[in-house]
Amino acid sequence: MRRIGIGLIGFGTVGQGVARLLSANAEMIAARLGATVALQRIALRDPARARNPSVESLGVPVTTDWRDVVDDRDVRVVCEVIGGLDPARELMMAAIRNGKHVVTANKHLLAEHGDEIFSAADNAGVEVHFEAAVAGGLPIIRTIREGLVADRIDALWGIVNGTSNFILTRMEQAGTAFADVLREAQAAGYAEADPTLDIEGIDAAHKIALLASLAFATRIRPGQVFTRGVSIVEAADLAWAARFGFRVKHLAIAKDHGDAIEVRVHPTLIPREWLLASVSGVLNAVYIRSRALGPSLYYGHGAGGDATAVALLGDIIDACRSLLAFRHAPARPTEVAPRPVREMGDVECRYYLRLACSDQPGVLARVAGALAAHDISIAEVVQERAADGQATLVLLTHRARERNMQAARGEIDRFDVVSQPARLLRIEE
Amino acid sequence: MRRIGIGLIGFGTVGQGVARLLSANAEMIAARLGATVALQRIALRDPARARNPSVESLGVPVTTDWRDVVDDRDVRVVCEVIGGLDPARELMMAAIRNGKHVVTANKHLLAEHGDEIFSAADNAGVEVHFEAAVAGGLPIIRTIREGLVADRIDALWGIVNGTSNFILTRMEQAGTAFADVLREAQAAGYAEADPTLDIEGIDAAHKIALLASLAFATRIRPGQVFTRGVSIVEAADLAWAARFGFRVKHLAIAKDHGDAIEVRVHPTLIPREWLLASVSGVLNAVYIRSRALGPSLYYGHGAGGDATAVALLGDIIDACRSLLAFRHAPARPTEVAPRPVREMGDVECRYYLRLACSDQPGVLARVAGALAAHDISIAEVVQERAADGQATLVLLTHRARERNMQAARGEIDRFDVVSQPARLLRIEE
Repeated sequence: MRRIGIGLIGFGTVGQGVARLLSANAEMIAARLGATVALQRIALRDPARARNPSVESLGVPVTTDWRDVVDDRDVRVVCEVIGGLDPARELMMAAIRNGKHVVTANKHLLAEHGDEIFSAADNAGVEVHFEAAVAGGLPIIRTIREGLVADRIDALWGIVNGTSNFILTRMEQAGTAFADVLREAQAAGYAEADPTLDIEGIDAAHKIALLASLAFATRIRPGQVFTRGVSIVEAADLAWAARFGFRVKHLAIAKDHGDAIEVRVHPTLIPREWLLASVSGVLNAVYIRSRALGPSLYYGHGAGGDATAVALLGDIIDACRSLLAFRHAPARPTEVAPRPVREMGDVECRYYLRLACSDQPGVLARVAGALAAHDISIAEVVQERAADGQATLVLLTHRARERNMQAARGEIDRFDVVSQPARLLRIEE
Repeated sequence: MRRIGIGLIGFGTVGQGVARLLSANAEMIAARLGATVALQRIALRDPARARNPSVESLGVPVTTDWRDVVDDRDVRVVCEVIGGLDPARELMMAAIRNGKHVVTANKHLLAEHGDEIFSAADNAGVEVHFEAAVAGGLPIIRTIREGLVADRIDALWGIVNGTSNFILTRMEQAGTAFADVLREAQAAGYAEADPTLDIEGIDAAHKIALLASLAFATRIRPGQVFTRGVSIVEAADLAWAARFGFRVKHLAIAKDHGDAIEVRVHPTLIPREWLLASVSGVLNAVYIRSRALGPSLYYGHGAGGDATAVALLGDIIDACRSLLAFRHAPARPTEVAPRPVREMGDVECRYYLRLACSDQPGVLARVAGALAAHDISIAEVVQERAADGQATLVLLTHRARERNMQAARGEIDRFDVVSQPARLLRIEE
């Protein structure tokens, strides 16, 4: 039986997961593929770790220089799991130049430098696989590229950042403040020491840029994604949302309007009955609406060493199938036509607005007047007395344009009766 | 650009969906595949229909003899959508002998005659694709074969029959009797005039036989699947289930016990919080538990012309990719090792038992005694007075063995204080 050598660059949780699964399921994989898939060489950063018994027991040559992997003639597929932009970009370009198929979970790199990487791969006649880059082990890339290849996706909504979803779930369950839950998530290993990429929505923006590019056959860059993180949500917002029948989720949203693409990432009120509202903790889900199939949902673990390793291995085995067939799949998402991203000011949705204001006559009238002046109509409103002569005013609007909403909000924030800036969240239904 | 000819056999709702999507998305498909995919010849049963303007407008030669399609040299992929065993089996074997890849939604045929069809395809060096056979447009076959290729699936639970799920959803929402809802479903087009395959669980048994064969790399035949339909459920059971925090769903269940496979289809009580419990109406969902990825769920429309056509076209395009690469994927699920199916008597689960009995002292003691004598312990019990000196007794058991439960139930049914046979449903958590 033919043997195909895999080069693994990076040996953290995910890299170890790849090594472990490949070894544990070697027989099954060989039966399904018709060839043996084996680690050929591993590159890791820390030389001390290379002498670790758990690494030595693999019986695979280990190096601290990734060049040893991409230059190894017996390595046919390079699996990159170090993350970040550098040196991931350099090593991936080197692997491609050397004629190796590349498998990666690196959404950041592909979202920022996909153009360069995909065209290098096209020129070299090799494949770039990245199922693991979005929603970990969930086969969402495969679903869009293969399962729905003959359908047209109109819109997709994803809970694609486990850390953000864990934080919102805990804030809702325990009524705890954001900062406390973040500390808890860090202690539990669900959030990084520097959580910026997750809690500011940047990771989700990378992922939706990739998904939208694939789904709509165009090229969306992370910089084009309107991005807000869970850090803007207060526990009170979750309680208020519940009173109106909503739950707050950190959604990545992409819609095809034909002439333009709408793409944004922010905390969002969604109806409690929507399946996405039941996705709790670190779990991920992507909800797709396509013309022929209608709605479909894909749900599972989006992170973690083993879940990500499953996706990487699925891709590695795909690359091996191509090697066995002497063919290669196109490296990049088919770009049918470049299309503009709709300006956020032109995006329309419903809004949730929470105001702290003086408990005195005429406040609601002034707020409603400001909204009406910007063509925004109110769907529901609740006013409640708070302490110290203060009141809380919560409004849900009908559909309105973002530009109008921001203008109205600016005016409302300047009212003397309003004691702190309005809290604004968007609604999807 | 190269052109690949498709032969379509059958032109009902699904066949028309294939023709419509292929034409509407021709440009997008060509861009993604790098070749043109076009209908070459259509076979349909009714000669009158062949002269219908909607068929003539396709500009594709139409025949009433499927042999014209499988013998056409320019047909490279045959898509069979007539369903049933005959002549589907004969035409598929003929297409395979003629060296054509075959794409089908026919779970019945594959579940019964998969062995013959897959080995003929292996010998002829052609592929058999059947994504559309289970859960329509949901890419569940692809997920098991490709996405989870390096993982081990321990168990899967599916809502795979839209008719049954529609009936249970309506019975629950409206408190209506089974027979009334069935008539409603037939009027709405969600149930066939002869609904036996759906409401007796036979369609679900075909599907779980295919899924379990793939997931566990073995061969499960429909005859090995313990099968009960939604027809055994009464509205009262749904209400009782709700009181205990459960919902009743018609589940197809498969579990890998290592030495044996457990595979069964029946109405099942499941906890209301489980995502599967939120799958309503004609929608389908499959919940997979695998070792590395953990839980994952796939949800969407399992039937309907367009949803099924999306899956067929995904498969057709896969077959075209193989034609372009001069290679072929293995036709059959890899059978790593044949394994026995666990006898239903040896299966263990929790049970729901509803009894109509005389409202007199000692009834509960006798029932509890019969259960205890068969090693079945009671988890929850509610007794309620009904009319005419009768009482309703509902029990939930802890895990017990099916053989013991059936023996205990037989004894209880013979009690003089029990006025009608016990209603028994199984629980999954």
